Amino acid sequence: MRIDVLSLFPDMFSGPMHDSIVGKAIENGHLTMPVTNFRDYSTNKHGNVDDYPFGGGAGMLLQPQPIFDALAATQEQAAAEGLPKGRVILTDPAGVTFDQHVAETFAHEEHLTFLCGHYEGYDERIRSLVTDEVSLGDFVLTGGELPTMVMIDATVRLLPGVLGNAESAPGDSFSSGLLEYPQYTRPADFRGMTVPDVLISGNHQKIAEWQQKEALRRTYLRRPDLIDHQHLTQQQKHLLADVRIEEEEKRDQQSRS
Amino acid sequence: MRIDVLSLFPDMFSGPMHDSIVGKAIENGHLTMPVTNFRDYSTNKHGNVDDYPFGGGAGMLLQPQPIFDALAATQEQAAAEGLPKGRVILTDPAGVTFDQHVAETFAHEEHLTFLCGHYEGYDERIRSLVTDEVSLGDFVLTGGELPTMVMIDATVRLLPGVLGNAESAPGDSFSSGLLEYPQYTRPADFRGMTVPDVLISGNHQKIAEWQQKEALRRTYLRRPDLIDHQHLTQQQKHLLADVRIEEEEKRDQQSRS
Repeated sequence: MRIDVLSLFPDMFSGPMHDSIVGKAIENGHLTMPVTNFRDYSTNKHGNVDDYPFGGGAGMLLQPQPIFDALAATQEQAAAEGLPKGRVILTDPAGVTFDQHVAETFAHEEHLTFLCGHYEGYDERIRSLVTDEVSLGDFVLTGGELPTMVMIDATVRLLPGVLGNAESAPGDSFSSGLLEYPQYTRPADFRGMTVPDVLISGNHQKIAEWQQKEALRRTYLRRPDLIDHQHLTQQQKHLLADVRIEEEEKRDQQSRS
Repeated sequence: MRIDVLSLFPDMFSGPMHDSIVGKAIENGHLTMPVTNFRDYSTNKHGNVDDYPFGGGAGMLLQPQPIFDALAATQEQAAAEGLPKGRVILTDPAGVTFDQHVAETFAHEEHLTFLCGHYEGYDERIRSLVTDEVSLGDFVLTGGELPTMVMIDATVRLLPGVLGNAESAPGDSFSSGLLEYPQYTRPADFRGMTVPDVLISGNHQKIAEWQQKEALRRTYLRRPDLIDHQHLTQQQKHLLADVRIEEEEKRDQQSRS
């Protein structure tokens, strides 16, 4: 996969991308990720990339020219490698909310380009270049760099061969449709806090059932919206019924005491 | 404000945090942000911080000891500065979803600590240290570092004096409750794409009305859930009624053609 990033702050990408799974994916040849400073494409003699908004208002807006020309250049490079133009992604609060499904869609592409806005905003005409407007959530950031890194991380870990342990990806929260069950490692007794007995029982069937049940419990208590009753197995339905009764009893006891 | 970060990959923070508003906030004395590698607190002779899960399963889990001891150390440092323990934040898919309201809550604190998990997961007992479990959204990442940076960016930009332009923060999407209206900067004609006439009319009242209306239009079309009818002004209600009629006419025309 090739991921182009267009940003005014290419250095922001070096640390996070080097020390992470993305760095390993680049090393192992699963990914190329050129980060282009679109300031280099400004035809303005001072290298300016922003200007005041028409109609007034606070702050400066990114101008169309540097981004249009930088994108044309990176798409030409990609074409020379036999790659399609691919998706051009803008992080924007008005976009669709990024989730695991969007990450999976991105992971199926050969070529992605992320445009990183910064500070106050950008000229509306830049949207005409964009195939996907994506929002990380209902909050405001100072730039598009961090959300771009988040989306790249979520996408690249799904590429075949990138995660060292082939079992890791499917067991995660969201890919199974449920939150993860509580996990414990050594020591079995840490400063008086102990591991549930079943996990050190050696009874694999009981352990598997406990893990299923606790994943259902956590999801039921915290994210009931994630439980898709139609797709639960018969065993999961029984476990969920037990969880419901147990949690109702707990609530009754708490309200009585 | 003091923000402690506990991470196995402290170098990931240097680039993004240096080139951003967070770097400026540190320079200007609004923020101190020590990043502590909790591996340095491991009592294991090899400096290990993870181990296999009890009960089996793929991957390694972060052990409690290094994180417990690293947090005790940073909280002691903070106490020596006269700061409270403050919130201890863990990024976790089971947590509450991070949004602008959570960022505002964080921005009112004197001291925050972010625990960054990595890869497969962490020992359940680590949660006992945590005051806030927060999720960035319904997707899976390789570690807690990037979501931590996102939350720090969203929080720090709200600290008084951090944003250069005092007008920038309140006009943003979400803080006004609506998405932002389209914005344009020079040139007025870019490769045949022109700026709406009203914005170069010089009529400030008309411009303000256009901006209100287009903010309402974008929110109506893309995020109708954000429109809080009770808190719209009379003028906004009238503009929204116009937008509805215009958009219905557009849809009718499209379905007829």
